[in-house]
Amino acid sequence: MDRLQDIVADIAAEMADVQDRGTVANYIPALANVSPKHFGMCIVGADGSVHKAGDAEMPFSIQSISKVFGLTIALGTVGDALWKRVGREPSGSAFNSIVQLETEHGIPRNPFINAGAIVISDILLGRYEPREALGEILRFVRELAGDHSIMIDEEVARGEAETGFRNQALAAYMRSFGNIHHAIELPLGLYFHQCALSMNCHQLALAGRYLMSDGKNPATGRSVVSPQRARRINALMITCGHYDGSGEFAYRVGLPGKSGVGGGILAVAPGLASIAVWSPGLNERGNSQLGAMALERLVQRTGWSVFEPVTPLLG
Amino acid sequence: MDRLQDIVADIAAEMADVQDRGTVANYIPALANVSPKHFGMCIVGADGSVHKAGDAEMPFSIQSISKVFGLTIALGTVGDALWKRVGREPSGSAFNSIVQLETEHGIPRNPFINAGAIVISDILLGRYEPREALGEILRFVRELAGDHSIMIDEEVARGEAETGFRNQALAAYMRSFGNIHHAIELPLGLYFHQCALSMNCHQLALAGRYLMSDGKNPATGRSVVSPQRARRINALMITCGHYDGSGEFAYRVGLPGKSGVGGGILAVAPGLASIAVWSPGLNERGNSQLGAMALERLVQRTGWSVFEPVTPLLG
Amino acid sequence: MDRLQDIVADIAAEMADVQDRGTVANYIPALANVSPKHFGMCIVGADGSVHKAGDAEMPFSIQSISKVFGLTIALGTVGDALWKRVGREPSGSAFNSIVQLETEHGIPRNPFINAGAIVISDILLGRYEPREALGEILRFVRELAGDHSIMIDEEVARGEAETGFRNQALAAYMRSFGNIHHAIELPLGLYFHQCALSMNCHQLALAGRYLMSDGKNPATGRSVVSPQRARRINALMITCGHYDGSGEFAYRVGLPGKSGVGGGILAVAPGLASIAVWSPGLNERGNSQLGAMALERLVQRTGWSVFEPVTPLLG
Amino acid sequence: MDRLQDIVADIAAEMADVQDRGTVANYIPALANVSPKHFGMCIVGADGSVHKAGDAEMPFSIQSISKVFGLTIALGTVGDALWKRVGREPSGSAFNSIVQLETEHGIPRNPFINAGAIVISDILLGRYEPREALGEILRFVRELAGDHSIMIDEEVARGEAETGFRNQALAAYMRSFGNIHHAIELPLGLYFHQCALSMNCHQLALAGRYLMSDGKNPATGRSVVSPQRARRINALMITCGHYDGSGEFAYRVGLPGKSGVGGGILAVAPGLASIAVWSPGLNERGNSQLGAMALERLVQRTGWSVFEPVTPLLG
Repeated sequence: MDRLQDIVADIAAEMADVQDRGTVANYIPALANVSPKHFGMCIVGADGSVHKAGDAEMPFSIQSISKVFGLTIALGTVGDALWKRVGREPSGSAFNSIVQLETEHGIPRNPFINAGAIVISDILLGRYEPREALGEILRFVRELAGDHSIMIDEEVARGEAETGFRNQALAAYMRSFGNIHHAIELPLGLYFHQCALSMNCHQLALAGRYLMSDGKNPATGRSVVSPQRARRINALMITCGHYDGSGEFAYRVGLPGKSGVGGGILAVAPGLASIAVWSPGLNERGNSQLGAMALERLVQRTGWSVFEPVTPLLG
Repeated sequence: MDRLQDIVADIAAEMADVQDRGTVANYIPALANVSPKHFGMCIVGADGSVHKAGDAEMPFSIQSISKVFGLTIALGTVGDALWKRVGREPSGSAFNSIVQLETEHGIPRNPFINAGAIVISDILLGRYEPREALGEILRFVRELAGDHSIMIDEEVARGEAETGFRNQALAAYMRSFGNIHHAIELPLGLYFHQCALSMNCHQLALAGRYLMSDGKNPATGRSVVSPQRARRINALMITCGHYDGSGEFAYRVGLPGKSGVGGGILAVAPGLASIAVWSPGLNERGNSQLGAMALERLVQRTGWSVFEPVTPLLG
Repeated sequence: MDRLQDIVADIAAEMADVQDRGTVANYIPALANVSPKHFGMCIVGADGSVHKAGDAEMPFSIQSISKVFGLTIALGTVGDALWKRVGREPSGSAFNSIVQLETEHGIPRNPFINAGAIVISDILLGRYEPREALGEILRFVRELAGDHSIMIDEEVARGEAETGFRNQALAAYMRSFGNIHHAIELPLGLYFHQCALSMNCHQLALAGRYLMSDGKNPATGRSVVSPQRARRINALMITCGHYDGSGEFAYRVGLPGKSGVGGGILAVAPGLASIAVWSPGLNERGNSQLGAMALERLVQRTGWSVFEPVTPLLG
Repeated sequence: MDRLQDIVADIAAEMADVQDRGTVANYIPALANVSPKHFGMCIVGADGSVHKAGDAEMPFSIQSISKVFGLTIALGTVGDALWKRVGREPSGSAFNSIVQLETEHGIPRNPFINAGAIVISDILLGRYEPREALGEILRFVRELAGDHSIMIDEEVARGEAETGFRNQALAAYMRSFGNIHHAIELPLGLYFHQCALSMNCHQLALAGRYLMSDGKNPATGRSVVSPQRARRINALMITCGHYDGSGEFAYRVGLPGKSGVGGGILAVAPGLASIAVWSPGLNERGNSQLGAMALERLVQRTGWSVFEPVTPLLG
């Protein structure tokens, strides 16, 4: 009997009936045209078991979830020197706020807000040529997921480039403080392409496995990051992973997670599971409305919150 | 062989040698006179075992750590209605910042910054007479710790009342938005007295046990809060428990924790231990410098981070 | 033929027909009960001529207009040392904003926003006993107006004291930075009473004469302030006299002026006239809607803008 | 006897002895290389008389003073519709602050801060091709000054384009709110070139004559702007012309004025004189240190403050 599979299927069925599904992001045509009806979920257990339901095989734009992968690569490339250019604190403001940058002299609060992720892109460009950097990210995600069909959606990337004036402002502003080292088009191009990674819940949950298992890719046994670094990325995800809704997500779900405006959320139950959910409608903080709800129910039924003292269920 | 006891003793010995011990809070004479040399630590395990070292029996002013107890009582009194008057998000600014209150119309970001705790005091005054409310808090903490000698330090409370102009400003400001319902002297008086609770590490670790064990006081077996509420208080502690250094604490230590300007930190390893450390010197964010360092070492040696997938050590 | 009298009468007649009269301040009952139908205007020319129309003899609460008198007395008492504790720049934010005080360490931007005027009151209390300070202000205004019937409306003063939580917050906040030297009740009490001065347009225009005539009271020939100081108070009025609507007032009217939430405006045409208007309805910036409109028309017909190069009309 | 000439010469002599000359702007090499020793001053009286001293014929980069000319042309082109996209209030913050744009949704506070001037450039580009717009500005200034040798310093313009990241951020940010209608390179290019106008005090004082004389160019008798518009531009200059030092300038000098980081100031005594001063050292607010000092002395000796009631001196 597969209890986890039942739970996932039940949650998907429950989500189908929810009326208030939030609002689909509309600033890029390619995102705006996605139906709010979709819901997908996939859990990959520490034992390698896969449990999925709904539109778990339907690709979506992972958007800011990619910031987790970008950070992981950059930490591997330049190490903790990275923290001279990005902070580790929740921002206390919207994902694209510029105010904090003025008072804190161009140092973004954390790598999971837009400004922070653009700095991460700029850091990668200190080591790689633009095209190479993007190849690095793509290769990294494909290897994590064990799936070489993962692609970047060029239409989405172009859409971001065309309308991303606020990100342009953030980059130029940080450059005025010396915290962007390249012509802003370069880190922005990399950032927009990374955000345009198109993945489905199954692939995303596979890609997140290293965060639940001490930094190792359980499929290959190879270390992606050190155990300490894996733990720390999880810490950043729980305090900063949902923009100005991070406290709420920690409160309701209790797992490290990272959301994207495409409606995806990657959540991690350390030692237990890597979880991806997707539903395109967003709440007022820009996080997937049904995604958070589904994760809340999952945690209630499994006891997977990192704050849960009880011995958790698996499989 | 008591491995935990060895770890605690080792850490205390290491801390004795640290040169840069931070700066003792100086805004109240009663706090300013404490020597930065002190360091105490006490761990109460889920099995009831007690491990302590250094000045673990020396009382100090718990200050903002009391916000955890105030919140717990208020949740028990008015339930989730409380969240209409206080948020659940990290503040992104200093513990006593007033800016956020202007843009968010007098609703403090969370119950662990000063403004939030003053609202919690005001909520308690909606149910209890001032003297009674204070008695409630004192009784609550004494019962949790199983120690009826715990007292409020009147000299500290008076010192806060005399110099607490910024807290007065926060209270008056929130009152102008209708989010303080009583004459500001009343919630401020309650708040200052609650902050003036004088406890030692041993008592504090005992008082924190309900947060590691599903909301139950393991000594009495009685439920203090529901399991879900215990988990959620832990979530608030990890995202908001160290003011504008919360992200850093989660990153380095990885445990729910709450600090006070008296130099104490209460940390929780759910299912494993309740931990109190104390050293009066503060870092630039107002959190105990050696306290955080000691907890970081503890977690490195025990694997108690909530983000650690491995089976943890106990006893 | 008295052309100025015709102009004043015409404007009063035009104002009677204006439909959109703004919103009467409602935070004090004593202010909220005033009818928006009222309109009064009085011009006192440099030659001593008086031209009035409408409700020019009906008393109203001068509120923040009193800040001009408070500043004048404080400058006479402590001189330019005053500027160590108050700035001289427009605030760029609402009259009761607290944000600026956080970033500028408790120094209010100028003496015409609430925080600034509270500091001015505190400065006066460094020289006078509270009751004496209020007596000083009352005596000063009575002498300027040559009218010893001017009174403070105790009901209004009490109303402010009861509901003035935001002013209380400003005072406590500045005290936390050391920029209020007395228990906040004292400067607040003085400030609330000064704001509660009850005057009519005729009295107010008489009281403002020193600002149009080189700092001299033309009735007595005595110097109230030096010519340079008179000029500088006028400069502060034009850049800061209408809160966050000061730029708009300078643009449309082009005269130094100070508004109050009671609906009054005192305006100065240097060398030409002292002008008071009153209509209780306020615009969204908290300045008298009809008052500003009436002054705009007056300046169009007289050429009294300080930016007007032409030889102006008088009498 | 030419008293004005004596005054100007005396002031220039006094300025030569001032030790603390401020700091020369260093963000563009072309500006950084100018010696702080320079001081020039030129007064053009309403009667056409010219009084100059010091380096009054040495060209400098007028920088933000050009914003007055840009605004004048834009008002002539689109009229008061312009005010839908730019405010008329002092900013209460630094010349290049981006914070206010976030809270006020991309509408800059006034046309004399950078953000406002970039919007003005964008407005001109709604009517003119880029090259044509720049030609318009050049033609306008040349005609006002009656001097067709006035040029744009391409080296300065290029320097701004290369280092103007903060202006780029402002433009991109406003574009994200829809308040910039063209690719940001276009209004920025126009803005940088306009700022790079190279003029001397003599030319600048001639160019400012329309602001002292009812909007007419006294040399040609032709109307540049309506009398009302001239008065209003003066009002904007007095409330917003010196960034976050506007209140101070009005307080000390009492004339409408506009400063530039090249060290120039254009000041207007309506009906009396158009005045240009130049000295490259800036005070901490970014305004010419000696320029403001010289104007303060001029006003003390001439009584030209707009707040002065006495009959002023001329010639």
